[in-house]
Amino acid sequence: MPTTFATPADFAAALDKLPMANGVLELAARRRQEQLTKPPGSLGKLEDIAIWLAGWQADGKPSAENMEIAIFAGNHGVTAQGVSPYPSTVTEQMVANFKSGGAAINAIADSLELGLRIVTLKLDQPTVDISTGPALSEEEALEALNAGAGTPHSETDVLILGEMGIGNTTIAASLAAAALGGRGKDWAGPGTGHDNAGVARKAAVIDTALARASRSGEMSAFETLRQLGGRETAAIAGAILGARLKRIPILLDGYVVTASLAPLFKANPRIVDHCLAGHVSAEPAHAKLLHRMKLDPILNLGMRLGEGTGAALAASIVRAAVATHNKMATFKEAAVENRPDAG
Amino acid sequence: MPTTFATPADFAAALDKLPMANGVLELAARRRQEQLTKPPGSLGKLEDIAIWLAGWQADGKPSAENMEIAIFAGNHGVTAQGVSPYPSTVTEQMVANFKSGGAAINAIADSLELGLRIVTLKLDQPTVDISTGPALSEEEALEALNAGAGTPHSETDVLILGEMGIGNTTIAASLAAAALGGRGKDWAGPGTGHDNAGVARKAAVIDTALARASRSGEMSAFETLRQLGGRETAAIAGAILGARLKRIPILLDGYVVTASLAPLFKANPRIVDHCLAGHVSAEPAHAKLLHRMKLDPILNLGMRLGEGTGAALAASIVRAAVATHNKMATFKEAAVENRPDAG
Repeated sequence: MPTTFATPADFAAALDKLPMANGVLELAARRRQEQLTKPPGSLGKLEDIAIWLAGWQADGKPSAENMEIAIFAGNHGVTAQGVSPYPSTVTEQMVANFKSGGAAINAIADSLELGLRIVTLKLDQPTVDISTGPALSEEEALEALNAGAGTPHSETDVLILGEMGIGNTTIAASLAAAALGGRGKDWAGPGTGHDNAGVARKAAVIDTALARASRSGEMSAFETLRQLGGRETAAIAGAILGARLKRIPILLDGYVVTASLAPLFKANPRIVDHCLAGHVSAEPAHAKLLHRMKLDPILNLGMRLGEGTGAALAASIVRAAVATHNKMATFKEAAVENRPDAG
Repeated sequence: MPTTFATPADFAAALDKLPMANGVLELAARRRQEQLTKPPGSLGKLEDIAIWLAGWQADGKPSAENMEIAIFAGNHGVTAQGVSPYPSTVTEQMVANFKSGGAAINAIADSLELGLRIVTLKLDQPTVDISTGPALSEEEALEALNAGAGTPHSETDVLILGEMGIGNTTIAASLAAAALGGRGKDWAGPGTGHDNAGVARKAAVIDTALARASRSGEMSAFETLRQLGGRETAAIAGAILGARLKRIPILLDGYVVTASLAPLFKANPRIVDHCLAGHVSAEPAHAKLLHRMKLDPILNLGMRLGEGTGAALAASIVRAAVATHNKMATFKEAAVENRPDAG
């Protein structure tokens, strides 16, 4: 059954009562790691990832075979304010590029044997310019959330989230500021390639949008996503919550995906428990956002493309974590002497 | 033809006249990157890796299909000084574990479809304790160097270097100190899991070895590897130089592999040009060593196992770099509008 939220209150209620990882399975995985033929802790983050997956995947044996990337694409009225060096038409052109296999994410998905799904959200209907009014009506926001919430398939071991949308680093910065505080200048960056003047213009647009939205008082997660978000950011938020309800772990991509999670994090910080940050992007505010949300990125490759590219690369690390956890011999099995002081 | 150095002078001569990357092919790869459907530079380190590979692989189209891990294993007389919490017998037991497929590197190599070769270097003949005398005779050192130099196959796209040898972080620290200056405390760390007292003991052993070796005056790369190294560290140095002569790019693993390169770096800093650092390990001096040798690691996963595990994980990043470079559509091919100010 796809997950559907009938009302904003349904969404808020689901966010309030999140299922948690299975601590018993997590502990069993930790015990197994201690028996494998390596000095304790020497696989670093691989050990953490395997133990974390074991806690979320209820059969106790972590798996990362079936991994799928979902890219959410949307268009943004705020591009009228000159917040991107690329025209809005590029969103649809890049979606065509994804579909014909010519984008970076296609090459990476093929290379790593990852599934790839493109979810386009009414590209011919850009959201309202957030500096002039709420991006979406309640109905529209709910529709986008549910488009995302229905995305995770039960058979997916790990869901990788990516996005495409000209102008959406401005949207991301607005969501981050609304959820975590601060102003436009704290969260705006070069995006696809702005100079300093361009970044300052983005920051001013974000400040105008924040001032406008704040007139409606304290905002819920839903209201933040509706007022300052886009269709793809609402869909990403829906996908994260939908995946949580099915206990499907998530690999987050860059700034836009992480910022889509920020309003949910403000409402319930435990929402990040089933999420791993695939990478930290070169967009300067991404590192700050991850730090504030207590997410420790797997990769740092100076990337800033989106499309799910950074998270997709991290999939190979997750697979290696699972492979070592499941396939390594124990000291006993391999007849390797453990250190004399080992228990 | 396998590369063989008949004398230490042959080795020094090869190190003195290194072949360099093809700048024309490198530039052509850089031009191609600028035309691919992404904002310029947005693939970060992936772009650098693809361009670097194109410069070393003479056919102008980077390839990372055929990647092989070579693990060099040796035993060390210095273990008599209590420099490792594990007994020396574990080296051979772990080699058996590699051969039967139960080690971390086996799981990772399988997961990423990487070839794996184990090169054992007279495990029944540990080197002389470096705190009491030169580790190897000239003949022994040359034999180990040549065992490594003969390793790279011409058909290998990228060679991944790993090692196994109880006690060899003490050897690595001695090589690093001899090549780059400093004392035992500057280069010794917990290795497979020493406490502070254990690290201090290692540092004192290293200082004794450095004082002993320095009595023979300024040391060449060969002499450093002979006086303070092990069979596997000499073989790694040989493999790096042997690969360079065949223009085969190298992925370096952790502290021991990088330290094996340090004496070569002192003799000719351009030796690192065909090398990428796969990761920075949790062994504290590894980051310092990489920094001093101007190597920027691809991954930082808190690993400290050796066996080539960190470098092997980086292989998937290298493959993704090649996949994006070779398979992405250009703006023109995909009919995607470039930014108006693009050339």
